Amino acid sequence: MTEYVTGTRPHPGEARAGGRGIPSQTDGGGTGAFDGHEAAAILEETRGTVDPALQAALDSLPGSMRRISRYHFGWEHADGTPAAGNAGKAIRPALVLAAAAALGGPAARTAALPAAAAVELIHNFTLLHDDVMDRDATRRHRPTAWTVFGDADAILAGDALQALALGMLAADPHPASAAAAARLADCVVELCAGQHSDTAMEKRGPSEVTLDEVLAMAEAKTGALLGCACALGALYAGAPEDDVEALDAFGREAGLAFQLIDDVIGIWGDPRHTGKPAGADLVARKKSLPVVAALGSGTPAATELAELYALPHEQGDDMERMTLAVERAGGREWAQEQAADRMARAMSELARAIPDPESAGGLLSLAEFVTRRST
Amino acid sequence: MTEYVTGTRPHPGEARAGGRGIPSQTDGGGTGAFDGHEAAAILEETRGTVDPALQAALDSLPGSMRRISRYHFGWEHADGTPAAGNAGKAIRPALVLAAAAALGGPAARTAALPAAAAVELIHNFTLLHDDVMDRDATRRHRPTAWTVFGDADAILAGDALQALALGMLAADPHPASAAAAARLADCVVELCAGQHSDTAMEKRGPSEVTLDEVLAMAEAKTGALLGCACALGALYAGAPEDDVEALDAFGREAGLAFQLIDDVIGIWGDPRHTGKPAGADLVARKKSLPVVAALGSGTPAATELAELYALPHEQGDDMERMTLAVERAGGREWAQEQAADRMARAMSELARAIPDPESAGGLLSLAEFVTRRST
Repeated sequence: MTEYVTGTRPHPGEARAGGRGIPSQTDGGGTGAFDGHEAAAILEETRGTVDPALQAALDSLPGSMRRISRYHFGWEHADGTPAAGNAGKAIRPALVLAAAAALGGPAARTAALPAAAAVELIHNFTLLHDDVMDRDATRRHRPTAWTVFGDADAILAGDALQALALGMLAADPHPASAAAAARLADCVVELCAGQHSDTAMEKRGPSEVTLDEVLAMAEAKTGALLGCACALGALYAGAPEDDVEALDAFGREAGLAFQLIDDVIGIWGDPRHTGKPAGADLVARKKSLPVVAALGSGTPAATELAELYALPHEQGDDMERMTLAVERAGGREWAQEQAADRMARAMSELARAIPDPESAGGLLSLAEFVTRRST
Repeated sequence: MTEYVTGTRPHPGEARAGGRGIPSQTDGGGTGAFDGHEAAAILEETRGTVDPALQAALDSLPGSMRRISRYHFGWEHADGTPAAGNAGKAIRPALVLAAAAALGGPAARTAALPAAAAVELIHNFTLLHDDVMDRDATRRHRPTAWTVFGDADAILAGDALQALALGMLAADPHPASAAAAARLADCVVELCAGQHSDTAMEKRGPSEVTLDEVLAMAEAKTGALLGCACALGALYAGAPEDDVEALDAFGREAGLAFQLIDDVIGIWGDPRHTGKPAGADLVARKKSLPVVAALGSGTPAATELAELYALPHEQGDDMERMTLAVERAGGREWAQEQAADRMARAMSELARAIPDPESAGGLLSLAEFVTRRST
C-alpha cells in the first residue's frame, strides 16, 4: 500500500490506532492541517463553475419541467419568482472536477464540466424521487417539490432531470462521454436498488436486518454516486481502466465513511454542527449502522436496546437509556472504527491511482470534508 | 409532394375527399389491400427479435429491480413464478427496425436492435410512472405494478428502465448510438412535459382547455416517441439529417392520427374491437380531442354538451344525448378529417425520405395498423 507522507495530512492508520476513530475538526492536533478551508474553497469554486452549466441545462427544458426543477434547485420560489439558489454543497461535481484535474490537469478539468453537471443532475433527480417516496416535507430548509407541485410533477421533473443528465453526456463530443454516460446509467440502477433496499428495510423489524444488508444499502445509496463521480472525472482525464476503478473505489469508501459518521452524529449529535438534534435517529427508530451493529452484538445491552426499539414512540422515550445501550453494545465504537477503516481504504485506492499527494490534494480535502460534516 | 402510386395502398387524400375520414378495416373496398396481416407479421417478428434483448437487459438489473420489471413486462407473476409474457404489441421497436430496414437494408435492421430495445424500455418506464400518477389499476389486463409492489417500487423500476435504455445506447459501439441516445433523452423530456400537460388539464374545466393545447399534449405524449422510434431507425441506417427529421415527422403525424382515432373510438366505440365500451370517455368526462373540438365549435350543441359535461357522473348520464351533442357540434367529423389529414402528412413525410413504396412498405403497414386499431 502506497501512503502519502506529507506531514500535513492526517495518516488514516494513526487515527485508527489511536482509538479515536473519527477525528473531529477540533482535534486536528497531532496530524495538523485539515481545517476544511481548502475543501470549502473547492466547493465554492465548483458551484461557480457548475451552476451556469446547470442553469443552462434547466433552461433547455419545457416550461413546466423547468419551473419544477428550478424550484427544486432553489433558483425559483414556489410562485416562480427568482431566488438566490440553494442547490446544496456540490460535493459530487467537485469530485468529478478534482478527479479530472488530478489525473489530467486543468484541460481535463475544463473538459469534464458536462460530467460534473450530469452527476449533479442525477443526484437531484434521486432527491426529487426519494422525497416523494419517503414523504419528506423539507429539503435544504425549504418545502420539497412534491409538497408544492404534487407527486406527479415531482416524479416527472425527476424523470426529466435523469434524461437531461444522460442526454447531456450522450451529446458531448468528448471521447470519454459515451463510457461516462454508460457508467452513470449503471450507477442510477444501483441508486434505485439502494433506495429500494432502504424502503424495504423500513418495513422489517430492527432485529431482522443484518449489518451486511445495511452496509450494502449504504454503499448503493451513498457510495455508488460518489464513486461514479470520481470515476467520471478519471474517464474525462483519459485515465487507464485501473485508475478509473481505483477512483471509483476511493469515492465509494469515502461515501461509506461519510454514512457511518452521519449515523454516529444522528445518535450522539455533533458538538459544533447542530443541524440534526442528538438522538433524532433513535426517536425515528432508524435502522442506522451503529444501531444494527449494536443489535447484532449478542450483548445484554443489545437485548435492552431491542426492547426499547420495540416500544412505540408515543409512550415517551428514555433517550439516555437508548443512547447508552447502543454505546454499551459497541455500536459507536464499531461505527467509528469502520469509518476510519473505510477512510484508510479510500486513501489506499487514491494513492494507487495518484501517488503524488500534491496532485491528489483536492480529492483528499473533499474526502476529509465529507467525512467530518453531518450535512 | 411525392405520393406513392401503387394501386395497392389507400390514398390518404381520397379517404378525406370522400368524407369518410377514417377508413375502417371493413371498408377497404375501393382502395383495397390493407388487411392488417402484414403489420401483424411485422409485429410478431419484432417481438421475437426484441424480446430476447429486453429479457437480457432486465436480467442485468439487481434482483429487486429485475423482479418488478419482469412483472410489468408480463414475464413473471406477482409471486415471482414465470409467466408467458404480455408485453404489448411492440409497435415502437417495430418502427425502429422497419425504419432502419427501409433506409439501410437488413444489416441496418440488425444493427438497430439496441435502439429498438431502448425505445421499448423507455415506453415501459413511462407506463410504470404514468400508472402511479394516474392511479390506473389495470394495464394489459393485469394489476399494475404499483398495486402489486407499491408506489415506491414502481417509481424505482421506471427509473431503472430509463437508465437501462439510455445506458444501453451509450454502451453500443455503433457510430449512431450517441446521437440516438441524445435524441431519445430529448424525447423523454418531451414525454414528461406531455404527461404533465395531461394531468394539469384534468384539473381544469372542459371549456378552459383549448384544442391547440390538447393537440400539443397528444403530440408530446403519443407522437413524440413514435417519431423518435422512426428517427432512431434512420440514424442507425446512417441516413442524412433530412431523412432522420422526415422519419420523425412521419411517426409524429401517424401518432397524432392514432390518438384522434382512439378518441373517436372512446366515444362511438368500434364495431369490431370492443376493448373499450362505447361512451367510456364521456362517462369519465375526458377532455378528448373530439370533445374539446365540439366544445369550441360555438354551436348550440356545444352549449348543450358543456352543460352535460358539468353534471357529475353520479346523477346518471344521458349517454345518447351526450354522444349526439358531440356529433352535432362537429366533434366527430373534425376528428376524422384531422386524422386523415395527419395520415396524409405522415405519408408525405415518408415519401420525402423513402420515395420507393416497396422500401417504405413496412412503415406504411405499421402506420396503417396503429391508426385502425383502438388498443
